[in-house]
Amino acid sequence: MSAYKNSVCFNEARRVAIFGGTHGNEMSGVTLVNLWVKNSAEIQRKGVETKPFIANPKAVEKCTRYVDTDLNRAFSPENLSAPGGDDLPYEVQRAQEINRIFGPKGSPEAYDVIFDLHNTTSNMGCTLILESSKDHFNLQMMNYIKKAITPASCLVLLNEHPLLKYSTSRSVAKHPVGLEVGPQPQGVLRSNIFEAMRVILKHALDFIELFNEGPVCNTLETLLAEMEYKFIGMEFPPCTVEVFWVSERIDYPRDANGNIIAMVHPNLQDCDWEPLNPGDPMFQTFDGKTIHYQGSGTVYPTFINEAAYYEKQQAFVTTRRETLVASAIRKA
Amino acid sequence: MSAYKNSVCFNEARRVAIFGGTHGNEMSGVTLVNLWVKNSAEIQRKGVETKPFIANPKAVEKCTRYVDTDLNRAFSPENLSAPGGDDLPYEVQRAQEINRIFGPKGSPEAYDVIFDLHNTTSNMGCTLILESSKDHFNLQMMNYIKKAITPASCLVLLNEHPLLKYSTSRSVAKHPVGLEVGPQPQGVLRSNIFEAMRVILKHALDFIELFNEGPVCNTLETLLAEMEYKFIGMEFPPCTVEVFWVSERIDYPRDANGNIIAMVHPNLQDCDWEPLNPGDPMFQTFDGKTIHYQGSGTVYPTFINEAAYYEKQQAFVTTRRETLVASAIRKA
Repeated sequence: MSAYKNSVCFNEARRVAIFGGTHGNEMSGVTLVNLWVKNSAEIQRKGVETKPFIANPKAVEKCTRYVDTDLNRAFSPENLSAPGGDDLPYEVQRAQEINRIFGPKGSPEAYDVIFDLHNTTSNMGCTLILESSKDHFNLQMMNYIKKAITPASCLVLLNEHPLLKYSTSRSVAKHPVGLEVGPQPQGVLRSNIFEAMRVILKHALDFIELFNEGPVCNTLETLLAEMEYKFIGMEFPPCTVEVFWVSERIDYPRDANGNIIAMVHPNLQDCDWEPLNPGDPMFQTFDGKTIHYQGSGTVYPTFINEAAYYEKQQAFVTTRRETLVASAIRKA
Repeated sequence: MSAYKNSVCFNEARRVAIFGGTHGNEMSGVTLVNLWVKNSAEIQRKGVETKPFIANPKAVEKCTRYVDTDLNRAFSPENLSAPGGDDLPYEVQRAQEINRIFGPKGSPEAYDVIFDLHNTTSNMGCTLILESSKDHFNLQMMNYIKKAITPASCLVLLNEHPLLKYSTSRSVAKHPVGLEVGPQPQGVLRSNIFEAMRVILKHALDFIELFNEGPVCNTLETLLAEMEYKFIGMEFPPCTVEVFWVSERIDYPRDANGNIIAMVHPNLQDCDWEPLNPGDPMFQTFDGKTIHYQGSGTVYPTFINEAAYYEKQQAFVTTRRETLVASAIRKA
């Protein structure tokens, strides 16, 4: 009966959004959100308002990643406060609009949770992407989902890095959660990827409902609540969560004109999340030479050979595998 | 010594082109052609002028399939003779330009062979695409390549159909050959797909060199030639070639507004070239219902869930497996 004493307290998550089509050619999220806009029964949870939302409708219509600029990098303070109206790039206008509906980013009025649904051409399986190692609500959610989908698995990518930070659509919410499922080519809908994403979302929404119905932080209220919710709510005691923490961005080898001169090595291709050790093959030049990884220790590469990252000069990212401790959480 | 009597005679194939980037986001062909433009040693063959050529440079620059319209459907008589100059869609202008350089289509001045390099998101492996069951030069080439790459394999798709015929870039040549290798997402370069394409091209060019150096049709010349080329040229006696002959185009199930309501069934996804029998699962609706194949007999589906064919209302094509007989060929 003392677990709550060391609990971190969060407001109930009453307002939840599910974004599809932040990138208009990532078809699982586009399709799921379009389905749920027509019929939301599947995403309804007691006491939660869940809003399915197409984030970049013009890009969805054209089945392209974006029209003017990457929406998922557009939610910077500069963009969100930029004057210019219709003269701004389409995605900057759209970021401002999304920030008005679901934010303002960083304010108490912002949505509690935004799930942003993405696909990748990389062989990443189901990946949940977090932006903070200190958001115990999200860490508890990761723990819940990982257990709920067993024996299937999903991994957690932690994109918390002073230099590689980018301003995502989901960053408007108090608890931003990216969901990245692959491999799936751009513009293609695969049933296995579609169903995997759907299952993760189901468990994520279940977690929110259980949290909202669970015991509260305040001592007296806790006692009352525990009597009342005994068979409904759920405790979230401290736990650990394995994450892959983004470390470094690795570009393709290029010539003096910026042209790519090598491909991801066949030994690395499709081996997202597997250890890459110093000396392991990393790239293969067009004339058959192998380029080896020269880092100082073992890393775990991911987003290997993602189509959309050629223009971002990124062949893959390296990560470190770490175990985070999540505090117990209770509702405030 | 009588094989030549029943031989079909073709002119030597002296002018050969290799097109990459007919679709600007199919990266194996784009990359190979760009390499060969810089250094053509690999594609040089004795007595053959081989020209590597980026067919749609604007689409390559944007890494998109096309700019205004699909170049690989643009080589119709109407387009090739259309007035309008700069007012025409970009790809129609480009088709006219390509027809001037490598054609005119259907004329004696046209290039002998055009290889057009494509990638698909479908699990098709190495596929050679022909447009005529009566082109014995190409059929002999298929036979040669299939034998040369053993134990690897490549299949032959015959796109000869009165209703599904389209006007390809390669159709400008006397002997058009499409090379389609997958699975590879659009905008991605995979080393395995790249190398597979490169090997097929090597054998295709070897075939042309051997044909050019082989015995001639004319009786007297044959005797002389056989003495001269005994250890250089090669006979191409009659042979059989297994082809998959395009039969029918199957669209995704759609609602009254044209929206897709089902995905390729997991039992069919990635099963290009495998038999599909009446009653087999074909699609899966978003609410989990299975739609079965209702045809009257066994077909062999291919181009299953190709990204670029959503806009063409095509989930896959069915084919019939047939064995064609190729006559002996000799140079005229």
